[in-house]
Amino acid sequence: MKKERSISDRQGVSRRQVLIGAGALAASTAIMQLGGLVGSARATGGKTEKWPWPYVKLDPATTAELAYKEWYRVFCGAAVINSVVSQLREKVGEPYNSFPSDAFVFLEGGIAGWGTICGSNAGANIVSNLIIGPRIAGPECEHGQVIGADMLQWYSKNKLPVFVPKTPKQPTAIVQTVSESPLCHISVGKWMAASGYPLGSPERKDRCARVAASVAYKLVEDLNAWKDGDYEPKSEWQPGKEFGITAQPNCTECHGSDVPSAPKAKVAEK
Amino acid sequence: MKKERSISDRQGVSRRQVLIGAGALAASTAIMQLGGLVGSARATGGKTEKWPWPYVKLDPATTAELAYKEWYRVFCGAAVINSVVSQLREKVGEPYNSFPSDAFVFLEGGIAGWGTICGSNAGANIVSNLIIGPRIAGPECEHGQVIGADMLQWYSKNKLPVFVPKTPKQPTAIVQTVSESPLCHISVGKWMAASGYPLGSPERKDRCARVAASVAYKLVEDLNAWKDGDYEPKSEWQPGKEFGITAQPNCTECHGSDVPSAPKAKVAEK
Repeated sequence: MKKERSISDRQGVSRRQVLIGAGALAASTAIMQLGGLVGSARATGGKTEKWPWPYVKLDPATTAELAYKEWYRVFCGAAVINSVVSQLREKVGEPYNSFPSDAFVFLEGGIAGWGTICGSNAGANIVSNLIIGPRIAGPECEHGQVIGADMLQWYSKNKLPVFVPKTPKQPTAIVQTVSESPLCHISVGKWMAASGYPLGSPERKDRCARVAASVAYKLVEDLNAWKDGDYEPKSEWQPGKEFGITAQPNCTECHGSDVPSAPKAKVAEK
Repeated sequence: MKKERSISDRQGVSRRQVLIGAGALAASTAIMQLGGLVGSARATGGKTEKWPWPYVKLDPATTAELAYKEWYRVFCGAAVINSVVSQLREKVGEPYNSFPSDAFVFLEGGIAGWGTICGSNAGANIVSNLIIGPRIAGPECEHGQVIGADMLQWYSKNKLPVFVPKTPKQPTAIVQTVSESPLCHISVGKWMAASGYPLGSPERKDRCARVAASVAYKLVEDLNAWKDGDYEPKSEWQPGKEFGITAQPNCTECHGSDVPSAPKAKVAEK
């Protein structure tokens, strides 16, 4: 990836420091909106709660193939998690050996079939925050949440699935759809409407396996960029700041033209 | 809790076996809908991937107080997780010592502020599946997913918050609302509409801290019942089976009276 050198690069501030600053700003906004605790929250520092965890760059295509295969064992969320964690168990060891990836099978179907967040998105957020750390662990860890949030935006705005496995279980072409939402119900629903295939069909299953693989590919691209000190935050979606409520960006799909206004704060943030 | 003895109890089949059977049936339905892999999926058996994890019964009120306090450090999802994990680190040790609870701060605001699943629900599902195990790990582990799914239903159908901390940070009464959904956006939005308080208000924050505490209380009640072999699955929500799509139960809130039909399967499940 070629990028123009920024002013701060030329002034001797590293890209990584600048980007950490940008991430910290976004995270601080979130803290003010959600918790109001800037500067007071701290990680407790348990045995594996020292971040970032050691990370070695992985091959996106290899990871995506692993996620595709794992979908047929543990489904979307745990497939994304284990596509990364299984490789890092081999290449790094602890703390990955102690992380129970298979516990996250329940992320399937938007959490036990309830159609909330797509398990692939949940899995990607778990991985980025697991490796880079939670934002409360310090400025080196801000990108865990940032990469996770960026994934929700990427997932919502792009035609998926983009990854085609080498030996797909369903060799027929899988139609791509844009969900405009990180939710399983909406993502799967729009795909079923466009393709005509039902939930229990082999085609729907392969579509979801390829979505998990697509997310795993993108996740490792982003983690590799972060490892190189080269990750640029992309999220534009700041609903708390802009609309006064946590939200997905497809407001009119549920609310129609009558999107309600959230109660406004009476005073500025302290 | 007094319960009538069932026929199977009287016939010498333990309540736990019966309940595991019921859970297995529900889980099998989910597998058929979502993955179609009954009997072929297996956990890989990593270092901490042996389930159930050792569990000792915890006090619900103590756990809820911990969750309430932790909300102000790590927010909803990680507060619920750590309210249980921190106690089991002391009472049991491993594998709880190795689980990085603080990595889950990102569950706040429905995953990084996007308003998807309420972090308290996500945290409760993580805990139940972490301790009891994923459904692919065997019949002893089916209740991990069942208790998690039951929490989504309980959260959606009841007035929350129900738990009042001993020394609340906001001593004023907090209005209770029914979300009809496990999503942060809808849960917080309905509460803000009923109370008039904005997202950044101390009252909204204390409401969410009390919701986390309420969920933690219920979670430990359920884990204790499971430990006693006395847990009864409660979920009636089987959207894949009933409607052919993963979904939350508030269909008309988004779709109005025009709820679309999912494509139907052409053949029976094999």
